Amino acid sequence: MPGTSRTYAFLGPEGTFTEAALLQVPDALQAVRVPASNVNAALDAVRDSVADAAMVPIENSVEGGVTATLDAIATGQELWIIREVLVPISFVLVARTGVRLEDVRRVSTHGHAWAQCRLWMDKNMPGAEYVPGSSTAASAVGLLDGDCQYDAAICAPLVAREHEGLSVLAENIGDNPGAVTRFVLVSRPGALPARTGADKTTVVVPLPEDRPGALMEIVDQFASRGVNLSRIESRPTGQYLGHYFFSIDADGHAGEARVADALAGLHRISPGTRFLGSYSRADRQSTPVPAHTSDEAFSAAQSWVESILAAESLAGENGSGASPKA
Amino acid sequence: MPGTSRTYAFLGPEGTFTEAALLQVPDALQAVRVPASNVNAALDAVRDSVADAAMVPIENSVEGGVTATLDAIATGQELWIIREVLVPISFVLVARTGVRLEDVRRVSTHGHAWAQCRLWMDKNMPGAEYVPGSSTAASAVGLLDGDCQYDAAICAPLVAREHEGLSVLAENIGDNPGAVTRFVLVSRPGALPARTGADKTTVVVPLPEDRPGALMEIVDQFASRGVNLSRIESRPTGQYLGHYFFSIDADGHAGEARVADALAGLHRISPGTRFLGSYSRADRQSTPVPAHTSDEAFSAAQSWVESILAAESLAGENGSGASPKA
Amino acid sequence: MPGTSRTYAFLGPEGTFTEAALLQVPDALQAVRVPASNVNAALDAVRDSVADAAMVPIENSVEGGVTATLDAIATGQELWIIREVLVPISFVLVARTGVRLEDVRRVSTHGHAWAQCRLWMDKNMPGAEYVPGSSTAASAVGLLDGDCQYDAAICAPLVAREHEGLSVLAENIGDNPGAVTRFVLVSRPGALPARTGADKTTVVVPLPEDRPGALMEIVDQFASRGVNLSRIESRPTGQYLGHYFFSIDADGHAGEARVADALAGLHRISPGTRFLGSYSRADRQSTPVPAHTSDEAFSAAQSWVESILAAESLAGENGSGASPKA
Amino acid sequence: MPGTSRTYAFLGPEGTFTEAALLQVPDALQAVRVPASNVNAALDAVRDSVADAAMVPIENSVEGGVTATLDAIATGQELWIIREVLVPISFVLVARTGVRLEDVRRVSTHGHAWAQCRLWMDKNMPGAEYVPGSSTAASAVGLLDGDCQYDAAICAPLVAREHEGLSVLAENIGDNPGAVTRFVLVSRPGALPARTGADKTTVVVPLPEDRPGALMEIVDQFASRGVNLSRIESRPTGQYLGHYFFSIDADGHAGEARVADALAGLHRISPGTRFLGSYSRADRQSTPVPAHTSDEAFSAAQSWVESILAAESLAGENGSGASPKA
Repeated sequence: MPGTSRTYAFLGPEGTFTEAALLQVPDALQAVRVPASNVNAALDAVRDSVADAAMVPIENSVEGGVTATLDAIATGQELWIIREVLVPISFVLVARTGVRLEDVRRVSTHGHAWAQCRLWMDKNMPGAEYVPGSSTAASAVGLLDGDCQYDAAICAPLVAREHEGLSVLAENIGDNPGAVTRFVLVSRPGALPARTGADKTTVVVPLPEDRPGALMEIVDQFASRGVNLSRIESRPTGQYLGHYFFSIDADGHAGEARVADALAGLHRISPGTRFLGSYSRADRQSTPVPAHTSDEAFSAAQSWVESILAAESLAGENGSGASPKA
Repeated sequence: MPGTSRTYAFLGPEGTFTEAALLQVPDALQAVRVPASNVNAALDAVRDSVADAAMVPIENSVEGGVTATLDAIATGQELWIIREVLVPISFVLVARTGVRLEDVRRVSTHGHAWAQCRLWMDKNMPGAEYVPGSSTAASAVGLLDGDCQYDAAICAPLVAREHEGLSVLAENIGDNPGAVTRFVLVSRPGALPARTGADKTTVVVPLPEDRPGALMEIVDQFASRGVNLSRIESRPTGQYLGHYFFSIDADGHAGEARVADALAGLHRISPGTRFLGSYSRADRQSTPVPAHTSDEAFSAAQSWVESILAAESLAGENGSGASPKA
Repeated sequence: MPGTSRTYAFLGPEGTFTEAALLQVPDALQAVRVPASNVNAALDAVRDSVADAAMVPIENSVEGGVTATLDAIATGQELWIIREVLVPISFVLVARTGVRLEDVRRVSTHGHAWAQCRLWMDKNMPGAEYVPGSSTAASAVGLLDGDCQYDAAICAPLVAREHEGLSVLAENIGDNPGAVTRFVLVSRPGALPARTGADKTTVVVPLPEDRPGALMEIVDQFASRGVNLSRIESRPTGQYLGHYFFSIDADGHAGEARVADALAGLHRISPGTRFLGSYSRADRQSTPVPAHTSDEAFSAAQSWVESILAAESLAGENGSGASPKA
Repeated sequence: MPGTSRTYAFLGPEGTFTEAALLQVPDALQAVRVPASNVNAALDAVRDSVADAAMVPIENSVEGGVTATLDAIATGQELWIIREVLVPISFVLVARTGVRLEDVRRVSTHGHAWAQCRLWMDKNMPGAEYVPGSSTAASAVGLLDGDCQYDAAICAPLVAREHEGLSVLAENIGDNPGAVTRFVLVSRPGALPARTGADKTTVVVPLPEDRPGALMEIVDQFASRGVNLSRIESRPTGQYLGHYFFSIDADGHAGEARVADALAGLHRISPGTRFLGSYSRADRQSTPVPAHTSDEAFSAAQSWVESILAAESLAGENGSGASPKA
C-alpha cells in the first residue's frame, strides 16, 4: 500500500525497553511510532483506531505494567496479541558528556530499574542518592535539561545511542546479567497470525464456580488434549471478594485441532472465556505434539464418529431398528 | 414389507428367560424366532445374515453367557446393540401333570438356576438330588420324555405355559424375589436407534498403555463431558498377559454432542475403540444433562471457535498481521 | 504344630481345575482337602472355621463361579485373599478303559467346558450328543457308574490320573491352547502375606454417589499414587437400581506406603470400602514403582510435614506469633 | 517480657499504606517500627534478625513490590508468612497548609498511585504536571522541604495525619473507591499461628517436569483433598527458559489433616516444595470442609489402614499365610 504506513503505539517515552521491543517488528522502523504515557493509553490508541497495534510489556518488566497489562487486555473492548518479543534487559549508567563517574552524587531512574541495579550501585557508588524517575528514558533525557537535579541516570543502551550529549559511564550494571523481558504486540481482532509450529495461545477464563475442582476442570481442558501451559495466573475479577479469572498461556495455535478443541471445552465450562490471540513464540522453541493429539488423530476420530452418526437417520420406525432394508 | 417378516435368533431352547426377553420386542410375536444352542451361535446367525437380530443375556444371567456375551460382541465382525430388555427372574418347579411334590426325588435345571433356588430347596426339599441340565427349558421339556431320569425341573414360568403335560408344583421359588436379568438385542451395524433422552451407549476400549493414569484418561473422556458410566469392566484381551480392554456402558446416546465428543476423545487415545451401540434404557430412567454439556453448549462453543478461526485466512503476510485492511 | 494339619476347602468335586489349583499350594498335598459343591459352600467352610482356607475360581473359569465368587467375597463376613494361582486349562476326552473313540455317541461335561471344546468336537466328532454335567470331574467319574447314560467325558487331565478305569482318548482338545484360569485362596482375616515386590491388592469400593466424576475420584486414588490397576469391574449392589460397587485389583501390597495411602484415600471418599487382601502375583511380574511414590518418598514427605507441624505448638499467644522466644 | 519490645520492619517510608497495614497488628503501636527502602531490605532485616517480622505488600500494591515480594519470599533463606492484612486504598491530595487547589501546578506521587487517580486528575486538574516520587509518603513529606519542585502530593490519609504543616485538599480521589491491598507479615520460621477455621496456606512448588499434566498433578493434590485454591501464579525460576515454579494460596491450615496430606503429596511429586506459612485470613471468611476430608475422616481412614497393616507381622512363614495360629 504505497503512500501509507502503519502506526504503532508503545509504552513510552522514546528510548525505553518497550521501544527496543517494537523495533524488532519487521516494518516498525519505517512505521509511525507513537509513545504512550502508560499501558492503558497505548491500548486505547489501538481500540480507538488511532494506532494499528501497540507494544506493551507483559512480564517481569523493568518499568512495570505487567499485571496492569494483563488486566487491561482481559477487560474492555476485545484485543488480540499478534506477536511476542523478548528483549535482553541490559542497563547502562549515563551522564552528560564530560561528567566523570567520580563526579556523580545523585542518580535517577525508574524504581524498578533502581531495584535491579542495587548490587552494582552498593559496590561501586555506595554513597549515591536515588532520585525517582517516571521511566528510565525520562531520567536519561532529563540530564539534558538545564536545571537537572541529578548527575546520572540508569537506562537502556538505546537511549544513549538516540540522544547526542549523553555518554555511557558504565555498561551491564544490572544485577542479573541474563535478564530478559517479554513484550507483546496487540491489535484489534481480525487477523490470526499463521501457524508456525512454535506458537502460543493466550486466553482469559473466568472461574465458573469457587470450589475445589473448578480449576482442575479448566487445566484439564488443556492437559487432556496434550497442550502444555507455559503460564497461569489467577487474578481477582474486582467484582467481589473471592472471585477470580485465570490468565493462561498455552503452547500451540488455535488453528491446531487440539487447541481449538480445548478452547471449545473452556467455552462450555466458562462461557465468558476470552480469546486473546495465537502468535509465534519469541523463543522459536517448537511445540512437541503427542501423536494422539495431532490434527490427523482429531480428523480420524471425527470421521469415525461421523460414520456412526450417519446411521442415525437410517433408524427404523418400529422401535427395534433391527433390520437395515436389504 | 408384506409377505416377509423378520427373523430373530435367541439363546434357546424355547421357553428360556431369553425367549421371554425376545417376546418384549414389539414385532417379535409375529416374527420368526430361532433358538440357538449358545450365545456365539446366536450372534453368528446375525453376522451371517441368517437372522436380523439376536437376543442374548448380558448380565447376571441365570443361564450364563455374561462375560461370554461381552467378549463375543467385543471381537469378530462388528455388531451393534439396538435394544435392552429387563426380565424379572421368577422360578417355578414343574413336573408332569399328576406328579405331586412329595413324589419328587430328583430335580433337574441349569446349574445357575439351581444355585439361585438353593434356600428354597434346602428348606422344602432337603433330600432332593440334583441332575444338571443344559438349560432350564431343556430340563423342563425333558420331563415329557419317556425315559426321563428325574421327576421335576426348575424353569421359567413361560415353559410351563408353552407345553401341555407340565404342571407347576411351586411358584416363586428363587432366593432373591426381586431378581432381574438384562438382555440385549444385537444386529448388524447400520441403523442407530433414535434418541429418547433415556439412552445407553456401549463401547469397548483397548487400554492404550499399561500404566497408572491410562484408565484415568479413558474414564475422563466421559467425566469431563458430564457423562455418567453405569458399567465398566476390564477384560483381558487374551493376546498376552497384562493387556486389557474396557467394556463400558455410558448414560447417553451417540447422537448427543457430549457423547459424540467423548467417543471422538476415546478414538484419539485408543484408535481401536469399538462402538457397540446407542439404545434406549430398559428402565426408562432419563439422563440428567448438566447445562454446560448440553447440545446447545456444544453448539455455542463450536460457533465461538469457528468465529476465531475464520480470522485465520485473513492473516497478513508480513508476519505482524497487525492491520486488518480498513 | 505336630499332629495337626490344615484343612482346605475347594470348589469340587475332586479332579476339577480348582483342585489342581489347590495342589500348587506348598502344604496342600499333606493337608485335608474338602470338596464343596459350590463357591458359597467353600467360602462358608472358612467363615465357619471348618476350613482354614478355600480355593475358588475368580476369573474366566471353566466351571463358572466368577462373578459369584467376586460377589460372595465382597459381602457377608469378611474374608481375605492370601494367594493367587494360575492353572493352564487343558482338556482331555476320557472314557472307560476299552472304549474307543469311534464308539462314542454321547459326551458329558460342564456347559462351560463344552463351549470351550466346540471347534474340536465339530471337527472330530460332529455327530456327538451333549449331556450336561454339573462339573467336568462329575462327568468323568460318572463314567464308572453302572448305568451311565453317556460314553465319554471332557475333563481336566487330573481326573484321569486320579481314577483307575478311565483312559484318555484325546488330549488338548480345548479351542484355546493357551487358556489359563485364575484361582484365589481365601482365608479369614488375620495374617497379611509378606511383601514380595510382585503383589496384588484387592478391594471393593461402594460408589459413594452416582454422578459423573465419582468413578474418577476412586480411580484417581490409585493413579495419583502411581498404582496401576490390573482389573476393575462395576457390580450392582443389588440394593436398588443404579447403585454400584467396584471390585478392583491394584498392583502393589498394602504394606507399601503408596498403596496404604491409596487405601486411606478410598476409605475417606467411600467409608464402606472393604479390603480383600494383599498377596503375591501368580505371574511373579514385579511392579515398577515410580521414584516419587516409593516408600522413601513417602517417608521424606512425612518427615517434612512433621517438621512444619512441630512448630504449631510453639505459636505465640498474642496473635502475631512473630517472635520465637530467643 | 518487660523491658523489651518487638521490632517490625516495613516497606517505608513512614506514612505508606504498608505502615498502615503494620499498625493493624495488635502490638505494633508499642513496637519499634523500622522503615525499609524496598521489599528485599525489609525481608533481609528479618533474615538477619535485625527485625522480628516485616510487613510487605503481596498483591495489587499501590507502591509495587508484588511479584518482587513473591519471588523474594520464594527464594533465599526461608521465611514464613504469619499474618495477612487488608488495607483499603484511599488517596488524598495534600499540600502545605495554605496552598489552595487552584494554586497547584505540579503533583508528585508514586507511579502506581498516579495511575490509580488518573480519572480524578483528568477531570479536576487536567493541566497538572506529574513529578515521579519513590513512594506516596516521600512525595508528601517532600512538600515540607524548602526547595520542593512540586505543589501537591497524592498519598495515604495516614501521612497527612502524621505530619504537621500538611493539609488535605481533596479526599477519596482514587478511581476505584473499593480498592483494597493485601499485605503480609513475614517472620523467620519457628512458630506456626494457631488454626482459626479461616486460614490460608502459602506454598511454592517447582514444576517437576515441563509436560502437559504436571500442573494437573500439582493442582490435584489440593482438589482431591477438597482444598480450594484462592491464588495460583506460575513464575519463571530464572534458571533457564521454560522452567517454572508455582506460587499458591490454599484455603486451610497445615494443621488440618487434609492440608497436611496435600503438602505431603506436593513434597513427593516436587521435593523442592517450600512451605511459606499458614495464617488466618484477613477477610475472616471461614473455609467449608467437605465431610470426607475432615480431620475425623482422615483419622478414621488412618485407623482402618493401620488395622489392616497390624496383620502384616502376623503372616505365616510357609508362604500361604493361611492359618492364624488358634
